[in-house]
Amino acid sequence: MCLPFFFRLEVCKDSFGLIGWSFGIKDCLPEMIDSNFTFCYDKVNTAAIAVSMEVETLEEKEISQAVIGRLPRYFRYLGELKDQGVERISSQDLSELMKVTASQIRQDFNNFGGFGQQGYGYNVEYLYREIGRILGLDRQHNFIIIGAGNLGRALGNYLNFERRGFIFRGMFDQNPELIGMEVRGVRIMAMEEMEDFIRENDIDIAVLTIPKTSAVSVAERLVKTGIRAIWNFAHVDLNVPEGIEVENVHLSDSLMKLSYNIRRERVKETEETK
Amino acid sequence: MCLPFFFRLEVCKDSFGLIGWSFGIKDCLPEMIDSNFTFCYDKVNTAAIAVSMEVETLEEKEISQAVIGRLPRYFRYLGELKDQGVERISSQDLSELMKVTASQIRQDFNNFGGFGQQGYGYNVEYLYREIGRILGLDRQHNFIIIGAGNLGRALGNYLNFERRGFIFRGMFDQNPELIGMEVRGVRIMAMEEMEDFIRENDIDIAVLTIPKTSAVSVAERLVKTGIRAIWNFAHVDLNVPEGIEVENVHLSDSLMKLSYNIRRERVKETEETK
Repeated sequence: MCLPFFFRLEVCKDSFGLIGWSFGIKDCLPEMIDSNFTFCYDKVNTAAIAVSMEVETLEEKEISQAVIGRLPRYFRYLGELKDQGVERISSQDLSELMKVTASQIRQDFNNFGGFGQQGYGYNVEYLYREIGRILGLDRQHNFIIIGAGNLGRALGNYLNFERRGFIFRGMFDQNPELIGMEVRGVRIMAMEEMEDFIRENDIDIAVLTIPKTSAVSVAERLVKTGIRAIWNFAHVDLNVPEGIEVENVHLSDSLMKLSYNIRRERVKETEETK
Repeated sequence: MCLPFFFRLEVCKDSFGLIGWSFGIKDCLPEMIDSNFTFCYDKVNTAAIAVSMEVETLEEKEISQAVIGRLPRYFRYLGELKDQGVERISSQDLSELMKVTASQIRQDFNNFGGFGQQGYGYNVEYLYREIGRILGLDRQHNFIIIGAGNLGRALGNYLNFERRGFIFRGMFDQNPELIGMEVRGVRIMAMEEMEDFIRENDIDIAVLTIPKTSAVSVAERLVKTGIRAIWNFAHVDLNVPEGIEVENVHLSDSLMKLSYNIRRERVKETEETK
Protein backbone atom coordinates (compact mmCIF):
# COMPACT_ATOMS: atom_id res chain seq x y z
CA MET A 1 0.00 0.00 0.00
CA CYS A 2 1.70 3.16 -1.21
CA LEU A 3 0.76 6.80 -0.95
CA PRO A 4 2.30 9.65 -2.88
CA PHE A 5 5.15 11.28 -1.02
CA PHE A 6 6.08 14.79 -2.01
CA PHE A 7 9.76 15.43 -1.82
CA ARG A 8 10.61 19.08 -2.35
CA LEU A 9 14.01 20.57 -2.91
CA GLU A 10 14.43 24.33 -2.91
CA VAL A 11 17.51 25.65 -4.66
CA CYS A 12 18.34 29.31 -4.09
CA LYS A 13 19.03 31.22 -7.31
CA ASP A 14 22.19 32.76 -5.85
CA SER A 15 23.70 29.51 -4.58
CA PHE A 16 25.54 26.81 -6.50
CA GLY A 17 22.74 24.60 -7.80
CA LEU A 18 24.61 21.31 -7.69
CA ILE A 19 25.43 21.55 -3.98
CA GLY A 20 21.79 22.18 -3.11
CA TRP A 21 20.77 19.33 -5.33
CA SER A 22 23.09 16.66 -3.92
CA PHE A 23 22.16 17.73 -0.39
CA GLY A 24 18.54 17.02 -1.24
CA ILE A 25 19.23 13.60 -2.68
CA LYS A 26 21.20 12.54 0.40
CA ASP A 27 18.13 13.22 2.55
CA CYS A 28 16.03 11.00 0.34
CA LEU A 29 16.30 7.29 1.14
CA PRO A 30 16.71 5.09 -1.97
CA GLU A 31 13.77 2.83 -1.03
CA MET A 32 11.49 5.85 -0.99
CA ILE A 33 12.14 6.60 -4.65
CA ASP A 34 9.99 4.80 -7.15
CA SER A 35 11.00 4.49 -10.79
CA ASN A 36 7.76 6.22 -11.65
CA PHE A 37 8.48 9.82 -10.61
CA THR A 38 7.84 13.15 -12.19
CA PHE A 39 9.75 16.41 -12.16
CA CYS A 40 7.87 19.64 -11.95
CA TYR A 41 9.54 23.02 -12.08
CA ASP A 42 7.67 25.79 -10.39
CA LYS A 43 8.81 29.29 -9.54
CA VAL A 44 7.74 29.84 -5.94
CA ASN A 45 8.84 33.45 -5.50
CA THR A 46 11.57 35.75 -6.77
CA ALA A 47 14.13 34.37 -4.31
CA ALA A 48 13.82 30.66 -4.89
CA ILE A 49 13.18 28.02 -7.50
CA ALA A 50 11.45 24.94 -6.29
CA VAL A 51 11.92 21.50 -7.71
CA SER A 52 9.41 18.92 -6.63
CA MET A 53 9.69 15.26 -7.12
CA GLU A 54 6.81 12.92 -6.53
CA VAL A 55 7.88 9.59 -5.13
CA GLU A 56 5.94 6.77 -3.57
CA THR A 57 6.43 5.83 0.04
CA LEU A 58 4.54 4.32 2.98
CA GLU A 59 3.24 7.69 4.17
CA GLU A 60 0.32 6.41 6.23
CA LYS A 61 2.54 4.14 8.31
CA GLU A 62 5.07 6.79 9.15
CA ILE A 63 2.84 9.66 10.23
CA SER A 64 1.50 9.24 13.72
CA GLN A 65 -1.86 10.63 14.83
CA ALA A 66 0.13 12.82 17.23
CA VAL A 67 1.78 14.62 14.30
CA ILE A 68 -1.55 14.89 12.47
CA GLY A 69 -3.08 16.31 15.61
CA ARG A 70 -0.49 19.11 15.50
CA LEU A 71 -0.96 20.00 11.81
CA PRO A 72 -4.15 22.09 12.26
CA ARG A 73 -2.29 24.27 14.76
CA TYR A 74 0.57 24.84 12.28
CA PHE A 75 -2.04 25.61 9.65
CA ARG A 76 -3.69 28.18 11.93
CA TYR A 77 -0.41 29.97 12.77
CA LEU A 78 0.78 29.96 9.16
CA GLY A 79 -2.59 31.38 8.05
CA GLU A 80 -2.18 34.22 10.53
CA LEU A 81 1.41 34.89 9.40
CA LYS A 82 0.25 34.90 5.77
CA ASP A 83 -2.52 37.40 6.62
CA GLN A 84 0.12 39.61 8.28
CA GLY A 85 2.17 39.55 5.06
CA VAL A 86 5.04 37.43 6.43
CA GLU A 87 6.74 35.62 3.52
CA ARG A 88 9.42 33.53 5.25
CA ILE A 89 9.90 32.26 8.79
CA SER A 90 12.70 30.26 10.40
CA SER A 91 11.91 27.20 12.49
CA GLN A 92 13.41 29.18 15.41
CA ASP A 93 10.96 32.08 15.03
CA LEU A 94 8.03 29.72 14.46
CA SER A 95 9.16 27.85 17.58
CA GLU A 96 9.03 31.01 19.71
CA LEU A 97 5.65 31.99 18.31
CA MET A 98 4.05 28.59 18.81
CA LYS A 99 5.88 27.66 22.03
CA VAL A 100 7.09 24.31 20.71
CA THR A 101 10.74 23.40 20.14
CA ALA A 102 12.32 24.12 16.75
CA SER A 103 13.41 20.49 16.63
CA GLN A 104 9.79 19.38 17.05
CA ILE A 105 8.79 21.62 14.14
CA ARG A 106 11.56 20.26 11.90
CA GLN A 107 10.70 16.68 12.84
CA ASP A 108 7.01 17.23 12.16
CA PHE A 109 7.63 18.86 8.77
CA ASN A 110 10.11 16.13 7.81
CA ASN A 111 7.18 13.70 7.86
CA PHE A 112 5.96 15.43 4.74
CA GLY A 113 9.24 16.08 3.01
CA GLY A 114 10.55 19.09 4.86
CA PHE A 115 9.19 22.16 3.03
CA GLY A 116 12.21 24.16 4.10
CA GLN A 117 15.77 25.00 3.28
CA GLN A 118 18.55 25.11 5.85
CA GLY A 119 19.48 28.64 6.88
CA TYR A 120 16.77 30.12 4.73
CA GLY A 121 13.56 29.36 6.60
CA TYR A 122 10.17 28.22 5.45
CA ASN A 123 8.10 29.82 2.72
CA VAL A 124 4.92 30.71 4.64
CA GLU A 125 2.50 30.79 1.70
CA TYR A 126 3.80 27.50 0.31
CA LEU A 127 3.83 25.76 3.70
CA TYR A 128 0.29 27.00 4.45
CA ARG A 129 -0.97 25.70 1.12
CA GLU A 130 0.83 22.35 1.42
CA ILE A 131 -0.35 21.66 4.98
CA GLY A 132 -3.87 22.62 3.84
CA ARG A 133 -3.55 20.12 1.00
CA ILE A 134 -2.26 17.40 3.35
CA LEU A 135 -5.20 18.10 5.67
CA GLY A 136 -7.53 17.59 2.72
CA LEU A 137 -8.70 21.22 2.80
CA ASP A 138 -8.18 21.62 -0.95
CA ARG A 139 -11.51 19.92 -1.51
CA GLN A 140 -15.03 20.53 -0.27
CA HIS A 141 -16.62 18.34 2.39
CA ASN A 142 -20.39 18.18 2.81
CA PHE A 143 -21.67 17.51 6.30
CA ILE A 144 -24.95 16.88 8.07
CA ILE A 145 -25.77 17.36 11.75
CA ILE A 146 -27.80 14.75 13.58
CA GLY A 147 -29.47 16.26 16.64
CA ALA A 148 -31.01 19.74 16.45
CA GLY A 149 -30.47 20.61 20.12
CA ASN A 150 -28.42 23.55 21.38
CA LEU A 151 -25.04 22.10 20.43
CA GLY A 152 -26.22 20.93 16.99
CA ARG A 153 -27.63 24.38 16.24
CA ALA A 154 -24.46 26.05 17.50
CA LEU A 155 -22.33 23.95 15.12
CA GLY A 156 -24.73 24.56 12.25
CA ASN A 157 -24.40 28.29 12.77
CA TYR A 158 -20.60 28.25 12.91
CA LEU A 159 -19.43 30.04 9.76
CA ASN A 160 -15.74 29.21 10.22
CA PHE A 161 -16.32 25.65 9.02
CA GLU A 162 -17.63 26.99 5.70
CA ARG A 163 -14.43 29.00 5.23
CA ARG A 164 -12.40 25.79 5.48
CA GLY A 165 -14.56 24.03 2.89
CA PHE A 166 -16.90 22.18 5.25
CA ILE A 167 -20.42 22.82 3.95
CA PHE A 168 -23.48 22.38 6.17
CA ARG A 169 -26.07 20.53 4.04
CA GLY A 170 -28.73 18.97 6.28
CA MET A 171 -29.95 18.52 9.83
CA PHE A 172 -31.92 15.66 11.36
CA ASP A 173 -33.88 15.20 14.55
CA GLN A 174 -36.45 12.77 15.91
CA ASN A 175 -38.52 15.51 17.57
CA PRO A 176 -41.55 16.13 15.24
CA GLU A 177 -41.87 19.69 16.56
CA LEU A 178 -38.46 20.62 15.15
CA ILE A 179 -38.92 19.02 11.73
CA GLY A 180 -39.43 21.59 9.00
CA MET A 181 -37.71 24.37 10.98
CA GLU A 182 -34.50 25.87 9.60
CA VAL A 183 -31.00 26.50 10.94
CA ARG A 184 -29.09 28.98 8.77
CA GLY A 185 -31.27 28.14 5.76
CA VAL A 186 -30.87 24.37 6.25
CA ARG A 187 -34.06 22.40 6.88
CA ILE A 188 -34.42 20.03 9.84
CA MET A 189 -35.56 16.64 8.52
CA ALA A 190 -36.95 13.47 10.08
CA MET A 191 -34.49 10.71 11.01
CA GLU A 192 -36.16 8.40 8.46
CA GLU A 193 -34.94 10.64 5.63
CA MET A 194 -31.29 10.43 6.70
CA GLU A 195 -30.05 7.50 4.60
CA ASP A 196 -31.49 8.77 1.29
CA PHE A 197 -30.27 12.30 1.94
CA ILE A 198 -26.69 11.12 2.58
CA ARG A 199 -26.59 9.09 -0.64
CA GLU A 200 -28.21 11.77 -2.81
CA ASN A 201 -26.17 14.73 -1.54
CA ASP A 202 -22.62 13.37 -1.50
CA ILE A 203 -22.32 13.72 2.30
CA ASP A 204 -18.84 12.92 3.70
CA ILE A 205 -19.26 13.76 7.36
CA ALA A 206 -22.04 13.21 9.91
CA VAL A 207 -21.88 15.27 13.10
CA LEU A 208 -23.49 13.50 16.06
CA THR A 209 -24.96 15.82 18.68
CA ILE A 210 -27.46 13.37 20.15
CA PRO A 211 -27.54 11.65 23.56
CA LYS A 212 -25.27 8.64 24.02
CA THR A 213 -28.28 6.31 24.31
CA SER A 214 -29.18 6.77 20.62
CA ALA A 215 -25.67 7.52 19.24
CA VAL A 216 -24.61 3.88 18.88
CA SER A 217 -27.64 2.83 16.80
CA VAL A 218 -27.48 5.98 14.64
CA ALA A 219 -23.77 5.32 14.02
CA GLU A 220 -24.66 1.80 12.84
CA ARG A 221 -27.15 3.28 10.36
CA LEU A 222 -24.55 5.79 9.18
CA VAL A 223 -21.97 3.07 8.55
CA LYS A 224 -24.42 1.32 6.19
CA THR A 225 -24.82 4.48 4.10
CA GLY A 226 -21.09 4.47 3.31
CA ILE A 227 -20.41 7.75 5.14
CA ARG A 228 -16.70 8.60 5.33
CA ALA A 229 -16.48 10.15 8.78
CA ILE A 230 -18.32 10.75 12.04
CA TRP A 231 -17.63 13.77 14.21
CA ASN A 232 -18.92 12.47 17.51
CA PHE A 233 -20.05 14.77 20.33
CA ALA A 234 -22.10 12.03 22.04
CA HIS A 235 -20.46 10.91 25.27
CA VAL A 236 -19.84 7.34 24.12
CA ASP A 237 -17.15 5.58 22.06
CA LEU A 238 -18.40 4.35 18.69
CA ASN A 239 -17.28 1.10 17.09
CA VAL A 240 -17.12 1.52 13.33
CA PRO A 241 -15.36 -0.58 10.67
CA GLU A 242 -11.93 0.38 9.39
CA GLY A 243 -11.99 3.05 6.72
CA ILE A 244 -14.59 5.19 8.52
CA GLU A 245 -13.00 7.93 10.58
CA VAL A 246 -14.32 8.91 13.98
CA GLU A 247 -13.18 12.04 15.77
CA ASN A 248 -14.54 12.35 19.30
CA VAL A 249 -15.18 15.61 21.11
CA HIS A 250 -16.07 14.49 24.61
CA LEU A 251 -16.67 17.81 26.36
CA SER A 252 -17.05 16.29 29.83
CA ASP A 253 -13.67 14.57 29.44
CA SER A 254 -12.07 17.89 28.59
CA LEU A 255 -13.67 19.53 31.64
CA MET A 256 -12.44 16.71 33.90
CA LYS A 257 -8.89 17.20 32.64
CA LEU A 258 -9.21 20.83 33.68
CA SER A 259 -10.54 19.79 37.05
CA TYR A 260 -7.55 17.44 37.56
CA ASN A 261 -5.16 20.31 36.93
CA ILE A 262 -7.05 22.63 39.30
CA ARG A 263 -6.78 19.97 42.01
CA ARG A 264 -3.06 19.46 41.35
CA GLU A 265 -2.44 23.22 41.64
CA ARG A 266 -4.44 23.31 44.89
CA VAL A 267 -2.38 20.45 46.36
CA LYS A 268 0.82 22.22 45.29
CA GLU A 269 -0.27 25.44 47.02
CA THR A 270 -1.12 23.55 50.22
CA GLU A 271 2.30 21.87 50.19
CA GLU A 272 4.08 25.17 49.65
CA THR A 273 2.40 26.85 52.60
CA LYS A 274 3.22 23.94 54.95
CA MET B 1 7.69 19.95 46.06
CA CYS B 2 5.81 16.90 47.26
CA LEU B 3 2.28 15.72 46.66
CA PRO B 4 0.47 12.97 48.54
CA PHE B 5 0.78 9.61 46.86
CA PHE B 6 -1.84 7.03 47.72
CA PHE B 7 -0.49 3.53 47.86
CA ARG B 8 -3.26 1.00 48.26
CA LEU B 9 -2.93 -2.65 49.04
CA GLU B 10 -5.98 -4.89 48.85
CA VAL B 11 -5.87 -8.08 50.87
CA CYS B 12 -8.61 -10.59 50.16
CA LYS B 13 -10.31 -11.92 53.29
CA ASP B 14 -9.98 -15.51 52.06
CA SER B 15 -6.32 -15.26 51.12
CA PHE B 16 -3.25 -15.38 53.36
CA GLY B 17 -2.82 -11.78 54.49
CA LEU B 18 0.94 -11.78 54.81
CA ILE B 19 1.56 -12.87 51.20
CA GLY B 20 -0.63 -10.06 49.92
CA TRP B 21 1.13 -7.63 52.19
CA SER B 22 4.71 -8.45 51.20
CA PHE B 23 3.71 -8.43 47.54
CA GLY B 24 2.53 -4.84 48.02
CA ILE B 25 5.71 -3.71 49.74
CA LYS B 26 7.89 -5.14 46.99
CA ASP B 27 6.04 -2.98 44.48
CA CYS B 28 6.67 0.09 46.57
CA LEU B 29 10.07 1.69 46.01
CA PRO B 30 11.83 2.62 49.28
CA GLU B 31 12.40 6.25 48.20
CA MET B 32 8.65 6.65 47.73
CA ILE B 33 7.97 5.93 51.38
CA ASP B 34 8.20 8.83 53.73
CA SER B 35 8.60 8.35 57.48
CA ASN B 36 5.43 10.34 57.90
CA PHE B 37 2.76 7.91 56.69
CA THR B 38 -0.61 6.91 57.97
CA PHE B 39 -2.56 3.69 57.90
CA CYS B 40 -6.25 3.77 57.27
CA TYR B 41 -8.40 0.71 57.41
CA ASP B 42 -11.52 0.83 55.34
CA LYS B 43 -13.91 -1.94 54.47
CA VAL B 44 -14.57 -1.57 50.75
CA ASN B 45 -17.04 -4.41 50.23
CA THR B 46 -17.79 -7.84 51.67
CA ALA B 47 -15.03 -9.49 49.62
CA ALA B 48 -12.07 -7.28 50.35
CA ILE B 49 -10.35 -5.31 53.07
CA ALA B 50 -8.40 -2.35 51.86
CA VAL B 51 -5.28 -1.02 53.52
CA SER B 52 -4.11 2.32 52.34
CA MET B 53 -0.87 3.97 53.09
CA GLU B 54 -0.22 7.61 52.35
CA VAL B 55 3.34 8.34 51.29
CA GLU B 56 4.88 11.40 49.76
CA THR B 57 6.29 11.34 46.26
CA LEU B 58 6.83 13.63 43.29
CA GLU B 59 3.43 12.88 41.79
CA GLU B 60 3.22 15.89 39.49
CA LYS B 61 6.51 15.05 37.79
CA GLU B 62 5.65 11.45 37.12
CA ILE B 63 2.15 11.75 35.67
CA SER B 64 2.15 12.92 32.10
CA GLN B 65 -0.70 14.89 30.56
CA ALA B 66 -1.19 11.89 28.25
CA VAL B 67 -2.12 9.71 31.24
CA ILE B 68 -4.33 12.45 32.68
CA GLY B 69 -6.00 12.77 29.30
CA ARG B 70 -6.95 9.09 29.52
CA LEU B 71 -8.36 9.22 33.08
CA PRO B 72 -11.78 10.70 32.15
CA ARG B 73 -12.32 7.81 29.74
CA TYR B 74 -11.52 5.25 32.48
CA PHE B 75 -13.87 7.18 34.76
CA ARG B 76 -16.65 7.00 32.16
CA TYR B 77 -16.29 3.25 31.56
CA LEU B 78 -16.06 2.48 35.28
CA GLY B 79 -19.17 4.57 35.92
CA GLU B 80 -21.05 2.55 33.32
CA LEU B 81 -19.81 -0.76 34.81
CA LYS B 82 -20.84 0.41 38.27
CA ASP B 83 -24.32 1.32 36.97
CA GLN B 84 -24.55 -2.19 35.49
CA GLY B 85 -23.79 -3.70 38.90
CA VAL B 86 -20.30 -5.00 37.99
CA GLU B 87 -18.20 -5.25 41.17
CA ARG B 88 -14.82 -6.45 39.86
CA ILE B 89 -13.09 -6.38 36.49
CA SER B 90 -9.73 -7.75 35.36
CA SER B 91 -7.37 -5.53 33.36
CA GLN B 92 -7.89 -8.05 30.52
CA ASP B 93 -11.67 -7.54 30.45
CA LEU B 94 -11.33 -3.79 30.84
CA SER B 95 -8.83 -3.88 27.98
CA GLU B 96 -11.29 -5.63 25.66
CA LEU B 97 -14.09 -3.26 26.61
CA MET B 98 -12.04 -0.09 26.13
CA LYS B 99 -9.92 -1.30 23.21
CA VAL B 100 -6.63 -0.41 24.88
CA THR B 101 -3.97 -2.93 25.89
CA ALA B 102 -4.10 -4.46 29.38
CA SER B 103 -0.50 -3.39 29.85
CA GLN B 104 -1.47 0.24 29.10
CA ILE B 105 -4.21 0.03 31.73
CA ARG B 106 -1.83 -1.42 34.33
CA GLN B 107 0.80 1.19 33.52
CA ASP B 108 -1.72 4.03 33.76
CA PHE B 109 -3.12 2.83 37.08
CA ASN B 110 0.38 2.29 38.47
CA ASN B 111 0.85 6.05 38.25
CA PHE B 112 -1.61 6.35 41.10
CA GLY B 113 -0.61 3.33 43.12
CA GLY B 114 -2.20 0.49 41.21
CA PHE B 115 -5.67 0.07 42.72
CA GLY B 116 -5.63 -3.64 41.89
CA GLN B 117 -4.50 -7.03 43.04
CA GLN B 118 -2.85 -9.58 40.76
CA GLY B 119 -5.20 -12.34 39.65
CA TYR B 120 -8.10 -10.72 41.40
CA GLY B 121 -8.96 -7.73 39.24
CA TYR B 122 -9.95 -4.20 40.07
CA ASN B 123 -12.70 -3.18 42.45
CA VAL B 124 -14.95 -1.12 40.14
CA GLU B 125 -16.64 1.03 42.80
CA TYR B 126 -13.36 1.84 44.52
CA LEU B 127 -11.51 2.56 41.28
CA TYR B 128 -14.35 4.79 40.06
CA ARG B 129 -14.32 6.77 43.32
CA GLU B 130 -10.52 7.07 43.42
CA ILE B 131 -10.18 8.23 39.81
CA GLY B 132 -13.00 10.70 40.49
CA ARG B 133 -11.05 11.97 43.49
CA ILE B 134 -7.82 12.24 41.47
CA LEU B 135 -9.74 14.17 38.81
CA GLY B 136 -10.92 16.58 41.51
CA LEU B 137 -14.56 15.56 41.07
CA ASP B 138 -15.05 15.12 44.83
CA ARG B 139 -15.48 18.87 45.12
CA GLN B 140 -17.75 21.41 43.46
CA HIS B 141 -16.48 23.78 40.78
CA ASN B 142 -18.34 26.99 39.96
CA PHE B 143 -18.07 28.21 36.39
CA ILE B 144 -19.13 31.19 34.30
CA ILE B 145 -19.56 31.38 30.53
CA ILE B 146 -18.27 34.40 28.66
CA GLY B 147 -20.08 34.76 25.34
CA ALA B 148 -23.85 34.16 25.15
CA GLY B 149 -23.86 33.00 21.52
CA ASN B 150 -25.05 29.60 20.31
CA LEU B 151 -22.13 27.65 21.72
CA GLY B 152 -22.19 29.47 25.07
CA ARG B 153 -25.90 28.82 25.45
CA ALA B 154 -25.45 25.16 24.46
CA LEU B 155 -22.81 24.69 27.17
CA GLY B 156 -24.95 26.55 29.73
CA ASN B 157 -27.82 24.18 29.02
CA TYR B 158 -25.71 21.05 29.32
CA LEU B 159 -26.94 19.28 32.46
CA ASN B 160 -24.22 16.61 32.47
CA PHE B 161 -21.69 19.13 33.81
CA GLU B 162 -23.87 19.68 36.88
CA ARG B 163 -23.89 15.95 37.60
CA ARG B 164 -20.07 16.00 37.75
CA GLY B 165 -20.06 18.92 40.19
CA PHE B 166 -19.52 21.74 37.68
CA ILE B 167 -22.10 24.40 38.55
CA PHE B 168 -23.12 27.07 36.03
CA ARG B 169 -23.23 30.36 37.95
CA GLY B 170 -23.11 33.29 35.55
CA MET B 171 -23.00 34.35 31.90
CA PHE B 172 -21.49 37.47 30.34
CA ASP B 173 -21.82 39.16 26.99
CA GLN B 174 -21.02 42.55 25.49
CA ASN B 175 -24.24 42.69 23.46
CA PRO B 176 -26.66 45.02 25.37
CA GLU B 177 -29.66 43.26 23.82
CA LEU B 178 -28.74 39.97 25.54
CA ILE B 179 -28.04 41.45 28.97
CA GLY B 180 -30.77 40.63 31.48
CA MET B 181 -31.92 37.56 29.54
CA GLU B 182 -31.61 34.15 31.19
CA VAL B 183 -30.08 30.79 30.21
CA ARG B 184 -31.38 27.97 32.43
CA GLY B 185 -32.18 30.43 35.20
CA VAL B 186 -28.76 32.12 35.00
CA ARG B 187 -28.77 35.83 34.15
CA ILE B 188 -26.66 37.25 31.30
CA MET B 189 -24.61 40.15 32.69
CA ALA B 190 -22.53 42.94 31.18
CA MET B 191 -18.79 42.35 30.70
CA GLU B 192 -18.06 45.16 33.20
CA GLU B 193 -19.60 43.09 36.00
CA MET B 194 -17.33 40.08 35.35
CA GLU B 195 -14.44 40.78 37.77
CA ASP B 196 -16.65 41.50 40.80
CA PHE B 197 -18.86 38.50 40.07
CA ILE B 198 -15.88 36.12 39.92
CA ARG B 199 -14.49 37.35 43.25
CA GLU B 200 -17.84 37.36 45.04
CA ASN B 201 -19.07 33.97 43.84
CA ASP B 202 -16.01 31.75 44.28
CA ILE B 203 -15.71 31.07 40.52
CA ASP B 204 -13.01 28.54 39.58
CA ILE B 205 -13.53 28.17 35.82
CA ALA B 206 -14.28 30.66 33.03
CA VAL B 207 -15.56 29.20 29.76
CA LEU B 208 -14.61 31.34 26.75
CA THR B 209 -17.05 31.12 23.85
CA ILE B 210 -16.18 34.46 22.26
CA PRO B 211 -14.41 35.26 18.97
CA LYS B 212 -10.62 34.99 18.96
CA THR B 213 -10.25 38.75 18.49
CA SER B 214 -11.54 39.47 22.01
CA ALA B 215 -10.44 36.22 23.71
CA VAL B 216 -6.86 37.37 24.42
CA SER B 217 -7.86 40.59 26.21
CA VAL B 218 -10.66 38.88 28.17
CA ALA B 219 -8.17 36.17 29.25
CA GLU B 220 -5.84 38.91 30.54
CA ARG B 221 -8.70 40.34 32.63
CA LEU B 222 -9.53 36.85 33.93
CA VAL B 223 -5.94 36.22 35.02
CA LYS B 224 -6.06 39.38 37.19
CA THR B 225 -9.16 38.11 39.03
CA GLY B 226 -7.23 35.04 40.23
CA ILE B 227 -9.38 32.57 38.29
CA ARG B 228 -8.06 28.99 38.46
CA ALA B 229 -8.85 27.76 34.97
CA ILE B 230 -9.98 28.78 31.49
CA TRP B 231 -11.88 26.40 29.23
CA ASN B 232 -11.13 27.99 25.89
CA PHE B 233 -13.34 27.50 22.84
CA ALA B 234 -11.96 30.60 21.07
CA HIS B 235 -9.76 29.65 18.13
CA VAL B 236 -6.59 31.15 19.55
CA ASP B 237 -3.90 30.00 22.00
CA LEU B 238 -3.92 31.92 25.28
CA ASN B 239 -0.78 32.86 27.20
CA VAL B 240 -1.47 32.73 30.91
CA PRO B 241 0.92 32.58 33.88
CA GLU B 242 1.83 29.27 35.49
CA GLY B 243 -0.75 28.01 37.95
CA ILE B 244 -3.71 28.92 35.75
CA GLU B 245 -4.91 25.96 33.71
CA VAL B 246 -6.06 26.32 30.12
CA GLU B 247 -7.85 23.54 28.28
CA ASN B 248 -8.45 24.29 24.61
CA VAL B 249 -11.33 22.93 22.55
CA HIS B 250 -10.48 24.07 19.03
CA LEU B 251 -13.38 22.65 17.04
CA SER B 252 -11.91 23.58 13.64
CA ASP B 253 -8.70 21.72 14.52
CA SER B 254 -10.70 18.62 15.33
CA LEU B 255 -12.60 18.88 12.05
CA MET B 256 -9.32 19.24 10.10
CA LYS B 257 -7.95 16.10 11.72
CA LEU B 258 -11.06 14.32 10.44
CA SER B 259 -10.52 15.80 7.00
CA TYR B 260 -6.90 14.55 6.97
CA ASN B 261 -8.06 11.02 7.70
CA ILE B 262 -10.76 11.18 5.01
CA ARG B 263 -8.10 12.25 2.49
CA ARG B 264 -5.75 9.45 3.60
CA GLU B 265 -8.52 6.85 3.16
CA ARG B 266 -9.32 8.28 -0.28
CA VAL B 267 -5.68 8.04 -1.36
CA LYS B 268 -5.53 4.46 -0.02
CA GLU B 269 -8.61 3.49 -2.05
CA THR B 270 -7.15 5.05 -5.20
CA GLU B 271 -3.91 3.12 -4.71
CA GLU B 272 -5.76 -0.15 -4.16
CA THR B 273 -7.77 0.13 -7.36
CA LYS B 274 -4.64 0.92 -9.43
